[in-house]
Amino acid sequence: MKIGVFDSGVGGLTVFKYLEEVLPSYDYVYLGDNLRAPYGGRDDQTIYEFTRQAVDYLFKKENCQLIILACNTASASALRRLQQEYLPTLNDPHKRILGIIIPIAEAVPRLSKRGKIALIGTKATVKAESYDEEIAKAWGAVRPTEKMYLYKEAAPLFVPLVEEGLLKNRATKFLARQYLRPLKKHRPDTLLLACTHYPLLADLLAGIMGKSCRTILPGPIVAESLAEYLQRHTEIDELLSKGGSRRFLCTAPPQAFNNLSSRFLGYGVAAEQVLVG
Amino acid sequence: MKIGVFDSGVGGLTVFKYLEEVLPSYDYVYLGDNLRAPYGGRDDQTIYEFTRQAVDYLFKKENCQLIILACNTASASALRRLQQEYLPTLNDPHKRILGIIIPIAEAVPRLSKRGKIALIGTKATVKAESYDEEIAKAWGAVRPTEKMYLYKEAAPLFVPLVEEGLLKNRATKFLARQYLRPLKKHRPDTLLLACTHYPLLADLLAGIMGKSCRTILPGPIVAESLAEYLQRHTEIDELLSKGGSRRFLCTAPPQAFNNLSSRFLGYGVAAEQVLVG
Repeated sequence: MKIGVFDSGVGGLTVFKYLEEVLPSYDYVYLGDNLRAPYGGRDDQTIYEFTRQAVDYLFKKENCQLIILACNTASASALRRLQQEYLPTLNDPHKRILGIIIPIAEAVPRLSKRGKIALIGTKATVKAESYDEEIAKAWGAVRPTEKMYLYKEAAPLFVPLVEEGLLKNRATKFLARQYLRPLKKHRPDTLLLACTHYPLLADLLAGIMGKSCRTILPGPIVAESLAEYLQRHTEIDELLSKGGSRRFLCTAPPQAFNNLSSRFLGYGVAAEQVLVG
Repeated sequence: MKIGVFDSGVGGLTVFKYLEEVLPSYDYVYLGDNLRAPYGGRDDQTIYEFTRQAVDYLFKKENCQLIILACNTASASALRRLQQEYLPTLNDPHKRILGIIIPIAEAVPRLSKRGKIALIGTKATVKAESYDEEIAKAWGAVRPTEKMYLYKEAAPLFVPLVEEGLLKNRATKFLARQYLRPLKKHRPDTLLLACTHYPLLADLLAGIMGKSCRTILPGPIVAESLAEYLQRHTEIDELLSKGGSRRFLCTAPPQAFNNLSSRFLGYGVAAEQVLVG
């Protein structure tokens, strides 16, 4: 059985990149719902419905045992409901859907020095309370006597700017300074890039935040967290095949996905178009 | 029977605004497919399929007699096929689907002084040959002895910038100068805003192009063209009801559509969500 990696588009490839680096021997299938991307400006009900359809496809058509929602928007606004309402309908106690917010939240108490956390993401991610709740919970468990502050800002233009390849464009730099200004005034020690597109802007954003602020990318944390999870849950790991295969699927004609893939993944892929939903 | 106005999202409201100004007595229903917007980066087959579903909804569920595709992307890449393949399936010789490209193309020979036309639009609009073909045809019919040149550039960031309300932001100004630079070097006398979002940037774009270049908005031209069409085609006009009603539909939960509507239309609307496709 395979590991499924889902994202609304190509962004999740910045997570997949580290999954295959840390856990190369597994069989992976990546699904990007680029026909209906971006999810970041959509409402909760729509995000739930689209994500449920994609996850259902990966479980039923692609023989996945475990699915990573490598999408902050879907993790923030659909994961809990998928685990509570959808997963029981599969009648298989070993099927798993994991998001990327809990791993990131659990890394925060270890990575932040002074507990002043800044977060940028899509509108839907920032609006959802998932990061607030999960970081508070993780922090309370590890450093209960210390105070923790989370400051959030939406950066809605970053996704189209990244997809257009304008990584070093003056407009991107200007908007980045503008989006980060309200966060920077709190002097955070940690900047969470809570959108899988943003790692492509990591250098720019780190430069604006300055040396006293550490930038956290989702990919490496999620990959390490999955590796630990599979060590703890040998009953799941046993069900996963280790043939080292990769399969890339997307819901729109694949040309745009394939063109963008090398920028996000480091190598180009030939994705196949599938019908989801 | 009503006049349907279709767009992939809110942009078509910049056309609808002039339709109701020039032809106020008709009954209108506006449908924005904002659940699946933006169309501008999608492939032809997807754009055709989405537009066909929307048009089918307007004819069958909303009693439309005539539909304006107030969307450059849909007009450029789906209109002809809709007229050839879809319309005959309705078995009603008085049903009409009109796009916005032919009216704009037909206005060009009258509006352009020296036949040097610049066009900006989405990637799909710029890639499609519809504007090239229709402008060449209209020009040849009116000014056959004069040369005409069409220069096109895609400005993919304008739609998200406009939807974020960053109309006067420095990033928007910088990108506008960057997008217009290759057009400006040809010294065009006319700039066609071939996307219904761009009229909100008309002042900025006109300023960059300078006084010797005239900026053409789709809305006024399309409205005048429809008025003339209905005068010529009394057999269609007779079938249209004149109750002065307005109805706004969208495919995503309507909050975002309603919030954006006043910026595009001049007044706020309360759209209703419908299921299309």
